Amino acid sequence: MFGKETYIRRRAELKKLVGNGVILLFGNNEAPANYPANAYSPFRQDSSFLYFFGQHRDGLVGVIDVDNDTETLIGDDIDIEDIVWFGSVDSVSNLASQVGVAKSGPMKELKSICNEALRLHRKVHFLPPYRFDTMIQIMDLLGTHPSQQREAASLELIKAVVKMRSTKEAQEVEAIERACEVGYQMHTKAMLTAKPGVTERFVGGIVDGTARSLASKVSFATIFSQHGEIMHGCPSAAPLEAGRLALCDAGCELDDYCSDHTRTYPVTGKFTQRQLDIYKIVEECHDYALKVARPGVRWYDVHMDICRLMTERLKELGLMKGDTEEAVRAGAHAMFLPHGLGHMMGMDVHDMEGLGQQYVGFDEETQPSTQFGTNCLRLGRRLEENFVVTDEPGIYFIPALIDDWRSKGHCEEYLNFELLDTYKDFGGIRIEDDLLITKDGCRFLGKNRIPYHPADVEEFMAK
Amino acid sequence: MFGKETYIRRRAELKKLVGNGVILLFGNNEAPANYPANAYSPFRQDSSFLYFFGQHRDGLVGVIDVDNDTETLIGDDIDIEDIVWFGSVDSVSNLASQVGVAKSGPMKELKSICNEALRLHRKVHFLPPYRFDTMIQIMDLLGTHPSQQREAASLELIKAVVKMRSTKEAQEVEAIERACEVGYQMHTKAMLTAKPGVTERFVGGIVDGTARSLASKVSFATIFSQHGEIMHGCPSAAPLEAGRLALCDAGCELDDYCSDHTRTYPVTGKFTQRQLDIYKIVEECHDYALKVARPGVRWYDVHMDICRLMTERLKELGLMKGDTEEAVRAGAHAMFLPHGLGHMMGMDVHDMEGLGQQYVGFDEETQPSTQFGTNCLRLGRRLEENFVVTDEPGIYFIPALIDDWRSKGHCEEYLNFELLDTYKDFGGIRIEDDLLITKDGCRFLGKNRIPYHPADVEEFMAK
Repeated sequence: MFGKETYIRRRAELKKLVGNGVILLFGNNEAPANYPANAYSPFRQDSSFLYFFGQHRDGLVGVIDVDNDTETLIGDDIDIEDIVWFGSVDSVSNLASQVGVAKSGPMKELKSICNEALRLHRKVHFLPPYRFDTMIQIMDLLGTHPSQQREAASLELIKAVVKMRSTKEAQEVEAIERACEVGYQMHTKAMLTAKPGVTERFVGGIVDGTARSLASKVSFATIFSQHGEIMHGCPSAAPLEAGRLALCDAGCELDDYCSDHTRTYPVTGKFTQRQLDIYKIVEECHDYALKVARPGVRWYDVHMDICRLMTERLKELGLMKGDTEEAVRAGAHAMFLPHGLGHMMGMDVHDMEGLGQQYVGFDEETQPSTQFGTNCLRLGRRLEENFVVTDEPGIYFIPALIDDWRSKGHCEEYLNFELLDTYKDFGGIRIEDDLLITKDGCRFLGKNRIPYHPADVEEFMAK
Repeated sequence: MFGKETYIRRRAELKKLVGNGVILLFGNNEAPANYPANAYSPFRQDSSFLYFFGQHRDGLVGVIDVDNDTETLIGDDIDIEDIVWFGSVDSVSNLASQVGVAKSGPMKELKSICNEALRLHRKVHFLPPYRFDTMIQIMDLLGTHPSQQREAASLELIKAVVKMRSTKEAQEVEAIERACEVGYQMHTKAMLTAKPGVTERFVGGIVDGTARSLASKVSFATIFSQHGEIMHGCPSAAPLEAGRLALCDAGCELDDYCSDHTRTYPVTGKFTQRQLDIYKIVEECHDYALKVARPGVRWYDVHMDICRLMTERLKELGLMKGDTEEAVRAGAHAMFLPHGLGHMMGMDVHDMEGLGQQYVGFDEETQPSTQFGTNCLRLGRRLEENFVVTDEPGIYFIPALIDDWRSKGHCEEYLNFELLDTYKDFGGIRIEDDLLITKDGCRFLGKNRIPYHPADVEEFMAK
């Protein structure tokens, strides 16, 4: 939690941007895993609620009446039996005053506030909900069925929140730096644990445990897999095999901010020549983005530059063929790179993704693509100073995709399916770092670099 | 997953017990943490769905038409874009046949099945939902508002499921034994990591990471705290302090079955005399339950025996006074033991708790108590062979409770508040093991005992 001035300032700015009506910012509740009292752990507060109201307790709703310039923190106080089970906690009134909110009230007051606003035909702003309990709450408060709520969400509120959260304050950047430091620990421990015979799950557990020991939790389900070609591959019970690559995509949440890094390395600690040939292309793409990212540059253009660069290099290896421009226009490169170059990162690892990719990553000038692969680019618009973005090119050999395209003849003029067939046991490679867009360029976030240049990887893993 | 005969047999038995109507067993869906695509991880399937349909994928519903003796696995197949992100998975039709289910169909078929059943005024059985997305699903299928669904749930189905899941099959006991072995690893690693200066969170991370490395996940949020008096104390960022006790209550889920153990030990590895005086009472209570648990014994009676034993011993220390029987009848012991002696354990760590404690832990003969403390006893009824229960007495010194009772004069004739005041910095002690009720007694589950006798603890921590 930052100082209370932060939240007072942010809410004042939000009121200015939204202009009128009543803003409801729903905090999250506990999420039952297998019965009501056994919740997923740790509790995850809603990021936008945190951004404006700063409190981590479950069962809270922030209300901002823009027209009357009042703010209320809604929530029920806990009783002595709760204290026995969960320890003492502050009253809702104290939680409110800690973040500069003058009023507080019990949950039943929220119903009155909504009824009154509806009676007076005032606009009630809420963000697109993603928790199903919040959807039921909104249905009961405002009469909108869950299936209609994404459309009923307030565009003014979404745009205001995106505008504010996109540009990171200095204290936010510092928090991300701290999260990246834990990310360094998570990844380097994985690199030192990975060796033939150790299971993927064992290494994944080390990564997760390190996040729990040094931060709050992982920022998303840890990917640690010899099947790097599966974008969200869970660690399996399979032992690591000499000759294969392991891909680790993992990050943490610390003090409400995320890290997100990917490294790919040989299980033995030594790359084969075939692995190195592909790895160096990914490395070159990764470093290219680093060189060109700066305010004013369209991230969509950087993504397309990288698709062309990758196509050029894959042609040199004989895996692609034909005219580079045409191949990329046809989306042939998506055989290897079926995702985007990067995404915003902040309080959410895909920052604000729940508010709608079209508002977070795109604008009038730059619209999302519908082409396979590029449709997964989560950020296209021009970079601005203090954006935090990930730079994460990858090359994958996905057997099901190779077979699918080959059977359809899709992009056959640009792809060498015979050679591709021999790569079906390759896996996939991704290298990912978190970048801060600075005044005139960009820089890595995190004090220590997780090794990624091949020589550094081999040296580190020999330890 | 067990062999398909297991699921065929269980569903046949369920049909016999329920007798008529259409049974819906909802599998779980992914649970979004901070935006729709960022789910809590790992995915947790519903236990009753698993018990009868055995499959771990999200988005499935099991349908058993009792009257027509047909079974259908409902779920939508995934497409090529899903395969890129999540890898290949079996078709729903394959998933069905793996567990001996003849029919399968897409999610939209479920709506037709429900409409038809409602049209014919047939009974549609479902269990009390605890996931909010399932509640929305039930509302959309059957027209029952989420707030009414717990009451609308089928008592016949609840009772049938409780009857079947309460008595563990041999293969289930074996699975629990394996989970207990990982529990041993989790706890002994914590004991060896805990020392002055190391943070609670660091040790908690080791526990969680071990569960992830060797099992699937923790079976509930790990408790590792110097404030053992907070029943569900999260690991904090505070460093461990010489002179204090650390309480670790943790378990894992492995192959769909849980473990759940608690140990309490001195941060330095050496008990003080004051700690030992309290510890030995808890140890004696723990071992008492072990001695008397057998088929036919009421767990409620064992709980009350232990309350009396604890009261006797606390009187010897001067912390309690007056007549033991009267003190326990008045609930004075709940100052020290505000929870129950133990609970059922199986696929859920509090097994079947979501189905309703009154059906799982109680019956006509033994009804739940409403008295503070004993109202937290989750199991009261007579033990049966192949029940799995936890044995977990504890003694806590809860400053807020001491102050609350003292200010009200509650049970003052049985409590020495002056002496209690000097224990406000003590914390709490709990010792917990998992027991299998055998033909003529009970036995510990798990091959290795996590040390708990004081001399064993001290010897182990000296390593």
